[in-house]
Amino acid sequence: MEAMAASSAVARPTLRVAAFCGSLRKGSWHSGLVRAAEELCEECMPGLQIDHVDISDLPMANPDLETDNGDGFPPEVEAFRDRVLAADCFLFASPEYNYSVTGSLKNELDWASRGSVKCWADKAAAIVCAGGDFGGGRGSLHLRQIGIYLDIHFINKPELHVRAFDDPPKFDADGNLTDAETRERLKKVLLSLQAFALRLQRNE
Amino acid sequence: MEAMAASSAVARPTLRVAAFCGSLRKGSWHSGLVRAAEELCEECMPGLQIDHVDISDLPMANPDLETDNGDGFPPEVEAFRDRVLAADCFLFASPEYNYSVTGSLKNELDWASRGSVKCWADKAAAIVCAGGDFGGGRGSLHLRQIGIYLDIHFINKPELHVRAFDDPPKFDADGNLTDAETRERLKKVLLSLQAFALRLQRNE
Amino acid sequence: MEAMAASSAVARPTLRVAAFCGSLRKGSWHSGLVRAAEELCEECMPGLQIDHVDISDLPMANPDLETDNGDGFPPEVEAFRDRVLAADCFLFASPEYNYSVTGSLKNELDWASRGSVKCWADKAAAIVCAGGDFGGGRGSLHLRQIGIYLDIHFINKPELHVRAFDDPPKFDADGNLTDAETRERLKKVLLSLQAFALRLQRNE
Amino acid sequence: MEAMAASSAVARPTLRVAAFCGSLRKGSWHSGLVRAAEELCEECMPGLQIDHVDISDLPMANPDLETDNGDGFPPEVEAFRDRVLAADCFLFASPEYNYSVTGSLKNELDWASRGSVKCWADKAAAIVCAGGDFGGGRGSLHLRQIGIYLDIHFINKPELHVRAFDDPPKFDADGNLTDAETRERLKKVLLSLQAFALRLQRNE
Repeated sequence: MEAMAASSAVARPTLRVAAFCGSLRKGSWHSGLVRAAEELCEECMPGLQIDHVDISDLPMANPDLETDNGDGFPPEVEAFRDRVLAADCFLFASPEYNYSVTGSLKNELDWASRGSVKCWADKAAAIVCAGGDFGGGRGSLHLRQIGIYLDIHFINKPELHVRAFDDPPKFDADGNLTDAETRERLKKVLLSLQAFALRLQRNE
Repeated sequence: MEAMAASSAVARPTLRVAAFCGSLRKGSWHSGLVRAAEELCEECMPGLQIDHVDISDLPMANPDLETDNGDGFPPEVEAFRDRVLAADCFLFASPEYNYSVTGSLKNELDWASRGSVKCWADKAAAIVCAGGDFGGGRGSLHLRQIGIYLDIHFINKPELHVRAFDDPPKFDADGNLTDAETRERLKKVLLSLQAFALRLQRNE
Repeated sequence: MEAMAASSAVARPTLRVAAFCGSLRKGSWHSGLVRAAEELCEECMPGLQIDHVDISDLPMANPDLETDNGDGFPPEVEAFRDRVLAADCFLFASPEYNYSVTGSLKNELDWASRGSVKCWADKAAAIVCAGGDFGGGRGSLHLRQIGIYLDIHFINKPELHVRAFDDPPKFDADGNLTDAETRERLKKVLLSLQAFALRLQRNE
Repeated sequence: MEAMAASSAVARPTLRVAAFCGSLRKGSWHSGLVRAAEELCEECMPGLQIDHVDISDLPMANPDLETDNGDGFPPEVEAFRDRVLAADCFLFASPEYNYSVTGSLKNELDWASRGSVKCWADKAAAIVCAGGDFGGGRGSLHLRQIGIYLDIHFINKPELHVRAFDDPPKFDADGNLTDAETRERLKKVLLSLQAFALRLQRNE
């Protein structure tokens, strides 16, 4: 059994994780969480490779911008959709704005849901967030409901809702994750995402 | 009793209803719902005046665009916020995209939530939507959760979730509401919104 | 204006607040929150009177137990419904069990929603909760969604989600609220509930 | 690869599906849905075996009834927990009461979440419901949020929300599912549940 696990680990391809930051702010904690995920994967998780997808240049979703009977999109949207489609799984660094996800994040989710190619469908995903009292957690509940229709399979555990205002400090002024314990929790999220993605993937 | 109602109707000021369409599509059913609400108010509800607020030119919400310690905004946002602030109550024509509100609608909600002036706070609101199986109703559940933080008081009843694909047809190709029964239901929503806004307003 | 406020304060009847604890546990923090609310009202809020309604003896909701074409109920249910109906507003001390309300709380909500008399309808309410990371707050989101159909008007602010495991201790071993700051926050919830109930009530 | 798939299909054990009806009513549509699922599995889905678990005799969840440091339960609860634990996956026939799940269903979910043995954890599940306008669908959204904490993996598609009042009739007076199209949709839910459960199971 162990031998088999070992050999299957050898054969196991690297998973591409498309990672999205739902905030457009330069010093966003959430881009800091994506950067920390990139570092962790490079340092110690060879089975995962983060593709940090910038969503700031997407136009606002509008079916009137679609061509080709709903399968043609503006160039930035096409490029974005290609990266979603190429991913094996997803990492959403999703801030809570007014008890929900940001407009930017919702906008990207909507763009990649259009047309006959369902870019999100049947892939594993994890959510990480940071914020005040609930650490951004109310937004993650909405993201999960959105995922039902998109057919995304979210990991349930562990959840990472960083209470960013609690001591010790979690991020520096540029939004870099500086707290070792939070980094360790982020690593566990990534490991859980990897395990779930592999579980779903190998049986198709 | 009738005499009293009449005299209080005379004294009652017209309520300004800021109305928002969450879709950017030209032929949107939801702008059709706002137009129908405008017509109804002009025809038979003198106590309500619809201000149809266009949200299509708002930039994506980003705190980096704010100035003046968080109380200065891009010109389109300032203009938008002024109309939200000037309103007595709100009508959201809110499509369901992927089981939630649209990115555009979330974006406007977020912009007017920023800064020291809380533009949405403590006002009555109603939601109307149209769509497939649930008539857009899942999005309205998210909008209500967003409203907790914004301190919006939504009417509970009646709800208007138009099942737009059911017979008889509800909208024409330009998104105009053509179904008389749905128009009657929309009128009842507006009357309920008016009654709730007045109830909340006169006791401040 | 002040004179008017004063005279209307004099005339203002005491509001009956039906208060429910969603936990059946003897030493429940949530019955502690209801007891603290009772004490606060007795001590310093003469305009509010708490009716602590015990829900532990209600049978599980089952339409087969209804008689009289759906308007007759088992005796405990009738007694419970009478107290809901007699209340001017509601205080829900609602624990979060598995990210939602408890079965007991849902059961009472369902019983009083049956029949032709809508016991909950058109009244103000507040939610208070205590728990782990979100202080029970996820359950309150579900309770608010349930309230849409029941036509309950929840106050939006302030919210009270007590993080019961944080220092300083909030409750003693019997579930009594011992933390002065939390008591002060509870008082503000009650004041907000009172203000909202009066705002809704005087215009009917 | 095909050969392997074939041989693994041969070896594939029958999956035990614990099925729960959230209504206590005798003629409930939801027990009708469970019975229809049983029939379908017997007739044409040898890989699935339904265990229809009655939840009507469970006491209301109360930690004071637990013994053995939280790992001992009343006999009915122990028996119930054993069947949850023995299941490979779950089918919830979940009515919508007041925009959420029933108190009975929540109660069973809570009982099997207690103690050190997590009976629900890491198993696949599907939800089916019937009702008025949304076919019971709002309750299913709550059930999914509950499932995050319980670590249940719900299938996303297909969803089955039966609009029970639409023509043609869906159920007879005893709650038996009589509509062939709905039965076909139920079968697809079961096939999707089976596929998802196997996908999750074979990689552990």
